[in-house]
Amino acid sequence: MAKKNAREKLMQELLAPEYRLKCEYAIHIIELKLEMLMEQFYVECGRPVISNITSRIKTVDSIERKLRKKKLPIDFATAEGKLSDLVGVRATCFFEDDVYKLAERLMAQEDVTVIRKKDYIKKPKENGYHSLHLTVEVPIYTQEGCEKKRVEIQFRTVAMDFWAQLDYQLCYKKNIEEKTSQQIQKKLAKYADEMAGIDRQMMRLRRQIEKLGTNTETKEQPVE
Amino acid sequence: MAKKNAREKLMQELLAPEYRLKCEYAIHIIELKLEMLMEQFYVECGRPVISNITSRIKTVDSIERKLRKKKLPIDFATAEGKLSDLVGVRATCFFEDDVYKLAERLMAQEDVTVIRKKDYIKKPKENGYHSLHLTVEVPIYTQEGCEKKRVEIQFRTVAMDFWAQLDYQLCYKKNIEEKTSQQIQKKLAKYADEMAGIDRQMMRLRRQIEKLGTNTETKEQPVE
Amino acid sequence: MAKKNAREKLMQELLAPEYRLKCEYAIHIIELKLEMLMEQFYVECGRPVISNITSRIKTVDSIERKLRKKKLPIDFATAEGKLSDLVGVRATCFFEDDVYKLAERLMAQEDVTVIRKKDYIKKPKENGYHSLHLTVEVPIYTQEGCEKKRVEIQFRTVAMDFWAQLDYQLCYKKNIEEKTSQQIQKKLAKYADEMAGIDRQMMRLRRQIEKLGTNTETKEQPVE
Amino acid sequence: MAKKNAREKLMQELLAPEYRLKCEYAIHIIELKLEMLMEQFYVECGRPVISNITSRIKTVDSIERKLRKKKLPIDFATAEGKLSDLVGVRATCFFEDDVYKLAERLMAQEDVTVIRKKDYIKKPKENGYHSLHLTVEVPIYTQEGCEKKRVEIQFRTVAMDFWAQLDYQLCYKKNIEEKTSQQIQKKLAKYADEMAGIDRQMMRLRRQIEKLGTNTETKEQPVE
Repeated sequence: MAKKNAREKLMQELLAPEYRLKCEYAIHIIELKLEMLMEQFYVECGRPVISNITSRIKTVDSIERKLRKKKLPIDFATAEGKLSDLVGVRATCFFEDDVYKLAERLMAQEDVTVIRKKDYIKKPKENGYHSLHLTVEVPIYTQEGCEKKRVEIQFRTVAMDFWAQLDYQLCYKKNIEEKTSQQIQKKLAKYADEMAGIDRQMMRLRRQIEKLGTNTETKEQPVE
Repeated sequence: MAKKNAREKLMQELLAPEYRLKCEYAIHIIELKLEMLMEQFYVECGRPVISNITSRIKTVDSIERKLRKKKLPIDFATAEGKLSDLVGVRATCFFEDDVYKLAERLMAQEDVTVIRKKDYIKKPKENGYHSLHLTVEVPIYTQEGCEKKRVEIQFRTVAMDFWAQLDYQLCYKKNIEEKTSQQIQKKLAKYADEMAGIDRQMMRLRRQIEKLGTNTETKEQPVE
Repeated sequence: MAKKNAREKLMQELLAPEYRLKCEYAIHIIELKLEMLMEQFYVECGRPVISNITSRIKTVDSIERKLRKKKLPIDFATAEGKLSDLVGVRATCFFEDDVYKLAERLMAQEDVTVIRKKDYIKKPKENGYHSLHLTVEVPIYTQEGCEKKRVEIQFRTVAMDFWAQLDYQLCYKKNIEEKTSQQIQKKLAKYADEMAGIDRQMMRLRRQIEKLGTNTETKEQPVE
Repeated sequence: MAKKNAREKLMQELLAPEYRLKCEYAIHIIELKLEMLMEQFYVECGRPVISNITSRIKTVDSIERKLRKKKLPIDFATAEGKLSDLVGVRATCFFEDDVYKLAERLMAQEDVTVIRKKDYIKKPKENGYHSLHLTVEVPIYTQEGCEKKRVEIQFRTVAMDFWAQLDYQLCYKKNIEEKTSQQIQKKLAKYADEMAGIDRQMMRLRRQIEKLGTNTETKEQPVE
């Protein structure tokens, strides 16, 4: 009974328009910053650096599951205080060096406060997961004054994102035989390494091309 | 002089609002169809099949270059009649089988007339280029009646799209030494093969995962 | 009990992704058509004819209320068969003649089937409500073939829309004294007449201006 | 010759991506703030307060014309220093009191610096023009630090916006006979008064309705 009430109270607070408006505002601010950086880089490099940007507000189910897993109380204050990914934005770049350039430019902006940086590219997770995670705070201005809102931004390459699709499929499966699961985990980890290898050899080739000859004046996304 | 006039006349016709409005309408129609299919597949498969959709109207410069390369006269009628990619939409999918499923569903729609299908996935270009190209016609309804508008749709995987980024960089370079160019071309072709290999092994693993156990009920893009 | 079940079943069908996707597709198609017409008119007239476009899918609550009011059974088939406004789009124009021009162009498009036309501008409702209502059907193409989807499109002027804001406020009030209600209704009806008068005198003045002198070449939304 | 060069140099600077990106960023920030306020007001008042939001970056032609009219030198620094409307956003509200509430909330936000406020509602221009103009500065964060960008925000009611459509038509006419022009100006000024009258009587009626009875629980944009 108490458990049900806690969940319902949490749900009510997470669905309240005041909460959602602030989350959406924070998402829009980060998206806007990323889009502007993307445009700036296009002018500077003559090529797109971001393939796509996605975002999400963490669902009630997902918050509850995470709190439970971390053995934390199921309430709004705990969720806001302990989970840094209630609001999430993901930028998928073409190359690994673009990931770092983009993250650095964003962190250099005065109104972005970096709370935490976890580099799962330099030091991937055991399962093979690669991404650069930034937890940042951005100011939300309302008539009551200025409030800081936390956002987790994930930067990754298209190759890392492709890999993550499979990891994600697996993570929502249950009742899998232990042996099969281990087998798949092993394959996934191996493919993560291959992806990282491909990423780097492609980046090296790109740099080699960049140093070559001269550019023609007008560019356009080619259709072969 | 005549050359300059031909170019200017072509430019005028390509920048006329009547032409651009029809191109934009055709792009929006195809994008809308792809977005709806993406939603349908999400409901069916429980995972995203499209990573992103982009589009472009071919620029005057690019049209002129292509006509010149094909030794065709530089005028609007020739451009419209001979170039099938004046209006282009690109759908980048996660997996190769998604590319075919998506293309099939689109081709099955009554108001989409397939003019040509070029499968550069089954039979890649010599340089390593992989993509499935559809040239289709969609009806544009105006007060004067119904007009068919041609659109080239490119379907590819994120891996193929990543590769194409490099090919694109190279294709806008000039004054490159013959030897260097051949060296890079060779590397690109090799990487295209590797990408295709990765694509298939990832797809096989995805299918293996799909057959496993049972799904948990609610899904959400995970943040690790 | 039966009532509750009927409502829940209706809700389930109205929230099913298949239903919502088709509704959204129909909305997008109509919005796209209106936006293209808006652009065409801008090229033709040198001024914007549409102030804004909005849309909505009728909520479960609202559907249930309407079925109940019409003493119809509370089920999905009845809702789809008897209510023509499950999917609604509204185009707010600046001038009354723009309303008719826009509606005519839309109706002239081959893939738009007009089911019903109710002209509450020429013959306003008793309460003073002015708008032109079109019920149309547009084809939705899926892999199963072509399906017709019904959409109600409301065309009105900004003045009529302004008036409707008040009528809307009033319509969601309950427990109002009979005398007060009648008083307000009377005022509203009177203001509707005044609005219609303003609309026409403004339109006449616009036509007078249009016939005058010559246009300067470049136009831009002025900032005084 | 010098004149032509000045114009070309101005054009070059106004079309440079660095300039345009900052303008677009400023527009997006203001639009985002207005959209969030719109949502907040919807939660508070149960009705929409903004009918639509538009924006524009002032064109080269329009800047040149304005500098010339003010007998100022035709260069970028002068344009940036002396013209406060290079970047413009317009919010059209339903009611006059909404205009003030919205402007106040925006001005109360810490990161919005009000440079100037011109109230053409309380004190309309001679021709009848009504609007509330705010010139504000918002911070644009780039890797070089924080830069202030000026934006002119125009707040008006739908009735004032409707009127402005006609004024705008007239303002782009030339070679009009003096007598005819005066006649039309006079009519326009008269209609501006009528609009203001309508605006106030509608607002009074809205307030009368707001005080009445009780609200039904769920609201939806009605379709009559």
